[in-house]
Amino acid sequence: MSDGIYIVDVDLGERCYPIIIGPGVMKEPSNLLPYCSEDQVMIVTNETVAPLYLDQLKQTLQGVEVHVTLLPDGEEHKSLQTAETIFDHLLEVPCDRTTTLIALGGGVVGDIAGFVAGCYQRGIDFIQIPTTLLSQVDSSVGGKTGVNHSMGKNMIGLFHQPKCVIADTEVLSTLPARELSAGLAEVIKYGLISDSAFFSWLEAHIEGVLNLESDLVTYAIERSCRTKGEVVAADEREGGQRALLNLGHTFGHAIEAAEGYGVHLHGEAVAMGTMLAADLSFRLGWLESEEVARIANLYQRAGLPVIPPQELTAEDYLRLMAVDKKVKKGVIRLILLKKIGEAEIVSDYTTAQLKATLDSFSKT
Amino acid sequence: MSDGIYIVDVDLGERCYPIIIGPGVMKEPSNLLPYCSEDQVMIVTNETVAPLYLDQLKQTLQGVEVHVTLLPDGEEHKSLQTAETIFDHLLEVPCDRTTTLIALGGGVVGDIAGFVAGCYQRGIDFIQIPTTLLSQVDSSVGGKTGVNHSMGKNMIGLFHQPKCVIADTEVLSTLPARELSAGLAEVIKYGLISDSAFFSWLEAHIEGVLNLESDLVTYAIERSCRTKGEVVAADEREGGQRALLNLGHTFGHAIEAAEGYGVHLHGEAVAMGTMLAADLSFRLGWLESEEVARIANLYQRAGLPVIPPQELTAEDYLRLMAVDKKVKKGVIRLILLKKIGEAEIVSDYTTAQLKATLDSFSKT
Repeated sequence: MSDGIYIVDVDLGERCYPIIIGPGVMKEPSNLLPYCSEDQVMIVTNETVAPLYLDQLKQTLQGVEVHVTLLPDGEEHKSLQTAETIFDHLLEVPCDRTTTLIALGGGVVGDIAGFVAGCYQRGIDFIQIPTTLLSQVDSSVGGKTGVNHSMGKNMIGLFHQPKCVIADTEVLSTLPARELSAGLAEVIKYGLISDSAFFSWLEAHIEGVLNLESDLVTYAIERSCRTKGEVVAADEREGGQRALLNLGHTFGHAIEAAEGYGVHLHGEAVAMGTMLAADLSFRLGWLESEEVARIANLYQRAGLPVIPPQELTAEDYLRLMAVDKKVKKGVIRLILLKKIGEAEIVSDYTTAQLKATLDSFSKT
Repeated sequence: MSDGIYIVDVDLGERCYPIIIGPGVMKEPSNLLPYCSEDQVMIVTNETVAPLYLDQLKQTLQGVEVHVTLLPDGEEHKSLQTAETIFDHLLEVPCDRTTTLIALGGGVVGDIAGFVAGCYQRGIDFIQIPTTLLSQVDSSVGGKTGVNHSMGKNMIGLFHQPKCVIADTEVLSTLPARELSAGLAEVIKYGLISDSAFFSWLEAHIEGVLNLESDLVTYAIERSCRTKGEVVAADEREGGQRALLNLGHTFGHAIEAAEGYGVHLHGEAVAMGTMLAADLSFRLGWLESEEVARIANLYQRAGLPVIPPQELTAEDYLRLMAVDKKVKKGVIRLILLKKIGEAEIVSDYTTAQLKATLDSFSKT
């Protein structure tokens, strides 16, 4: 650490890589150039982020041959068709196996670009420069890449680890407040699943983080990435414990799918989904009601919704959750909370218990 | 080995898998069922192979829930669009992460199906049942998967190792003679790059192999798979020696691209491409002219072409070879022969030498 810069190493053996976190880290050539070995890069970004940060990034990459693929903004473009436009451009240039792909943007850009990097000529190097809080603490770390299918999110994808992740906290100043809050849903998640001290720290500092006080934001990102990095290093391909990172996601994906993607932000859906998981955890006798209230309270202070759309019925949830990747032999595995700071993968709840939770949040 | 059945293990640590070779191995449930752990499979096959072997395979899979995706036949369908039809079907069923995908067909089916298996929900298990000699000795072994792009072959793909490979020699009886010959191009390649004794064995037995004498065919496949498995195990992701397997391929791909895919079979293009590589090896003072003649002679006895299309100019080759995945910093790396049984990756030939070879095969 120097000048408030943190480096978190994700320990994946020969695919080990650093996450460089702090204000202005995107401006420092030595954070990027060592990973552009053959001096040719393809930056993948979108129409919203490019006007804000593309010139800055090009400045950092002086001396490197830079190509840019500009994507439309929005989750609805996270498709195989959009991936194809990047493949087309890579071949038009043409780029070979030694080109480095750089994802400059939020989770959608990072997921598509990572997928393309994983598939282009059977895999090329890539660098993640996440420009949202959500992608800085979650999607840019861990190597999950992919695109959506009309029948489900992230159904087409693969594991492809980046060479490094550049989490520049200065870029958060241009992030809409609602997206900052959505990112905090994942930050809070790390506290919930494995780090009760961090959860308490967030209870003490959430307003300061929302106000983008540099030291607080950098610390929150560093601690989130450290937890995620440890979980990923222990279970890269999600055979076991990595699934804990999906707290709130199975419910959340169902909410997003029911409403149509884009009504709620992913982080908002995760917050609401986590409230469903917390409710079921309470019904199983694990969480105390006071803990459920603490979770709801922290979400609300972070600007996040805690009550799922009431028009969704239990049947809606069950149908939509059945296509989730965490389904095993027809049984929906859920991530539930033993207490704040401890999560567990659960398959042995009863349908009646699950339905009771779903019904309690439904109007019909 | 029992009853003329061979098993070659590809040693990739935790991703180790067997290649089961011999007459009738597709009919034996114990060769397949251990890899269909959750009793749901998606067979991907094509319109040509399905009428011949789909019922037989279903018979072997009794007790398993079987779904089938039927693809049109032909390299021109080895595209992202065809892959999408398989994704669609997997989601319609719906199949989850525990479904096993089975590729029943030649290299095109195996490459597309392997790619889909590698990407569906970030990777599901798959089994290769190659039904051509070419795919039995080459594409089904080693985990390379992918689809073509209009601007180049296999430009979109990834490494995804199968759980097992079933090389049933009985299926070769329905293979057109021309395709059998095309497969022999790759068999001969293993002799050329690392196994001069095998090359001599092929010189002694090539007619018997062409006549599908069971012991000879099984042995030729076993020895080919053993060489390929060893090379792959030593260099799974083609950082170095695995590139030797591409002998004749860089030239061959250029021929295929220039003519339009489908004019010559892949194996035929490899044979012609290898003759170009042999010619350049001779010009570099490595191969003896007598060795070049032995190679041409064996190809011809195997029913393969040895003279590339004369209308291709040196410029055509150089332009088409420039997009090849083996290009590094603009220099085309070639696989050349030190002698029969020893190949090398070469970048330090001169353009004049390469042009001399290309011109000598060109009319213009």
